[in-house]
Amino acid sequence: MDHAIDESDDRSMNVMNYLNEIADEFPSAISLAAGRPRFLFNERLSNEALARAMIAYERHASGEVDGIRPRASLLQYGRTAGLIPELVAAQLRTDERVTALYDRLLITSGCQEALSICVAVLCPDPSDTMLVCNPTYAGVIGAARASRVPAFPLSNETNDLGEAIEKAVYNVKLVGRRARVLYLIPSFDNPTARVLNEDQRRNVLYVCARNRIVILEDNAYGLFRYEGQALAPMAALDESGSVLYLSTFSKTLAPALRVGAVTVPRTLFGDEGAAIDLMNQLIERKSFMTVNTSQISQAIVGGILVEQNGTLKRWIEPALLSYHRSRDAMLSQLRISFASISDRIHWNCPAGGFFLTMDLPFPFDAEAARVCAEKHGVLVTPMRFFALDKSQDRRVRLSFSGEEPDQIRMGIEAFAMYISTRLESEQRGWLQA
Amino acid sequence: MDHAIDESDDRSMNVMNYLNEIADEFPSAISLAAGRPRFLFNERLSNEALARAMIAYERHASGEVDGIRPRASLLQYGRTAGLIPELVAAQLRTDERVTALYDRLLITSGCQEALSICVAVLCPDPSDTMLVCNPTYAGVIGAARASRVPAFPLSNETNDLGEAIEKAVYNVKLVGRRARVLYLIPSFDNPTARVLNEDQRRNVLYVCARNRIVILEDNAYGLFRYEGQALAPMAALDESGSVLYLSTFSKTLAPALRVGAVTVPRTLFGDEGAAIDLMNQLIERKSFMTVNTSQISQAIVGGILVEQNGTLKRWIEPALLSYHRSRDAMLSQLRISFASISDRIHWNCPAGGFFLTMDLPFPFDAEAARVCAEKHGVLVTPMRFFALDKSQDRRVRLSFSGEEPDQIRMGIEAFAMYISTRLESEQRGWLQA
Repeated sequence: MDHAIDESDDRSMNVMNYLNEIADEFPSAISLAAGRPRFLFNERLSNEALARAMIAYERHASGEVDGIRPRASLLQYGRTAGLIPELVAAQLRTDERVTALYDRLLITSGCQEALSICVAVLCPDPSDTMLVCNPTYAGVIGAARASRVPAFPLSNETNDLGEAIEKAVYNVKLVGRRARVLYLIPSFDNPTARVLNEDQRRNVLYVCARNRIVILEDNAYGLFRYEGQALAPMAALDESGSVLYLSTFSKTLAPALRVGAVTVPRTLFGDEGAAIDLMNQLIERKSFMTVNTSQISQAIVGGILVEQNGTLKRWIEPALLSYHRSRDAMLSQLRISFASISDRIHWNCPAGGFFLTMDLPFPFDAEAARVCAEKHGVLVTPMRFFALDKSQDRRVRLSFSGEEPDQIRMGIEAFAMYISTRLESEQRGWLQA
Repeated sequence: MDHAIDESDDRSMNVMNYLNEIADEFPSAISLAAGRPRFLFNERLSNEALARAMIAYERHASGEVDGIRPRASLLQYGRTAGLIPELVAAQLRTDERVTALYDRLLITSGCQEALSICVAVLCPDPSDTMLVCNPTYAGVIGAARASRVPAFPLSNETNDLGEAIEKAVYNVKLVGRRARVLYLIPSFDNPTARVLNEDQRRNVLYVCARNRIVILEDNAYGLFRYEGQALAPMAALDESGSVLYLSTFSKTLAPALRVGAVTVPRTLFGDEGAAIDLMNQLIERKSFMTVNTSQISQAIVGGILVEQNGTLKRWIEPALLSYHRSRDAMLSQLRISFASISDRIHWNCPAGGFFLTMDLPFPFDAEAARVCAEKHGVLVTPMRFFALDKSQDRRVRLSFSGEEPDQIRMGIEAFAMYISTRLESEQRGWLQA
């Protein structure tokens, strides 16, 4: 157990700093590393547009078309749960099919705060443990560590996630701990791009409910599907009250807003009082972390939701189109650039999200990433940065959300050059040996 | 030790919720309870003004008068330490005489986040303990508890704060713990309005440096002085590198921005490497709480600082004038309303801040506050909400920042009615007994 935590020191902790540092050092390198939205439509978020959104929100809040603006209260401290739970709950119901009740929704300073609050509140006892996929989003390991909650990785030996959870519950119990929470990104996982199908979702729900494990479902990428049928989030399939739904406006609107939310189900494992109690604990924790989320940011988000009639589907359309093109460019260039070694290099073909995963025939670490940037002008992310053990040392995450198709093609070509150079030098070493 | 912590459950935890609830229940009651800024100058923070500030910041950041706006990067994720450390450090140097280095300044989602991060990072060991005044700001107790750090109250038996600290260090050591941090609001304390003079400040600095205790100096109210000479913050007097300076724009600009900062000294107890290491730990912790502070809020703050030539002294002038009038109205009405029982009711006369403290001849709790609001139409805050023991049960905090002079006079008169009614009924009870 503690071993798993210690290893996260070497791996998952430094992703964000590393990415920023190396990007600063090689500013002209093409970035297939950063998992951030691309802004092609800045005029929709110009200062004038932000001011317009705030006015739209204020009109909405005052219930009049051009009546009194509740300006003074907007500029003040406000409700810890937020100004706009009704608007956000309505959007989640419309766009993501999640049964979100406005009085079970806490607005947070980005999804990271929601995560951080949930982990701390759901694991109050020193023996409480969080289950995570391996690899997983680095921020969840950081949040766990900040609250001194051990993160236990699910085994990758089985493809059956339910079985892996049962096994983890058992192993956690063996060392005197208790699995309380499972963190999961079921749609277009960061960093692996994995999507759980509906059967897998139902199976995880079943196993977690049986073991009274709360699922923290992070759905940052769910709306970014480029082909195929949308899958219902686990929170929409949840019948036992086991899913806390984490959402964010960082990908749909802008990271700079720092507005996210956690939605608590109507009951917690069938107990309505327990759900209300949990909600109150989350609110209290939030009040001691950041008091409340910027009401200026909330008014901007609220105003855009009002202007968009409660759905962001139309708003994200141009971004979807653009990411779709970038993903296609990456996939087709991968096929071209790696044609000659397609037996040794593998990657997945996600139907959405911001990333894909590539398996390499050799280990790839921070030093390799630096060489890649310096010698070949391309930034990629070693998968080991997201890992709790050595299992991910021969993988990279390639992001297609940050660059235009042309850049992506050049980036993949450059990465292929790096790989063939490295394979050649290894072969030379092997021949000389 | 643990006793002190447990008692905070009953007292200091519910202030914010309580204040909101009772204010909702009696909306027409005059509030002498809320410790929030008053907005008389909303046009300075209109949506147009906010947009103008963002443009001013963007021009400043791009280094051109009307050049390219770095819009896309503003809307993105950004540096964890923030966009505007240089501008904030310059303002702290100018307005508050604090030697703030921009590379030792972390922008936070309000001062509460700064507090929360500092407590967690400075007290990593389960035996680490925080010293607090008693009463103290409720948010610090919450932050301590969220990180499972015990808060140990300084004794009120001596007026010598240095002596109280030495005693606390000793008592904490007796139970196998170690005092690591002291939280202090040396100017116009919340909730007591106490101001430490320069000798007291130097004495606290000396005692803390001797015991290697880091001082978290919260200076939310320092600029709000209505008469007399401004005192240098402790961070400005600090020669040994023991003060982390917490600042906020909630009182000077608007709470809704949620922008605060923590400034680390050049050295930590003379060790420059230790200060840099601490800074990096604070940044890492911040990244796992909220990633970074809203860059929209930061651009607004940055833009106002640019527009105001780096100082907020002129900006807050009208607010100072207004709070000054409200404080004078409160003090003169107190003298009038309590003339007949001036031997039994006492209060302090702070030269600044948002509050004053009143001593009562009977206990005053949440129930009493409710009666006050319901029967007499005035909201006041029981001091016990800020206390770690029973010592504050006969005191109230009266806030003059939230209302106009006329309302304040009516509020004090109403509170005097409550008190005389209660004294009479107690006397009747005594006569009948």
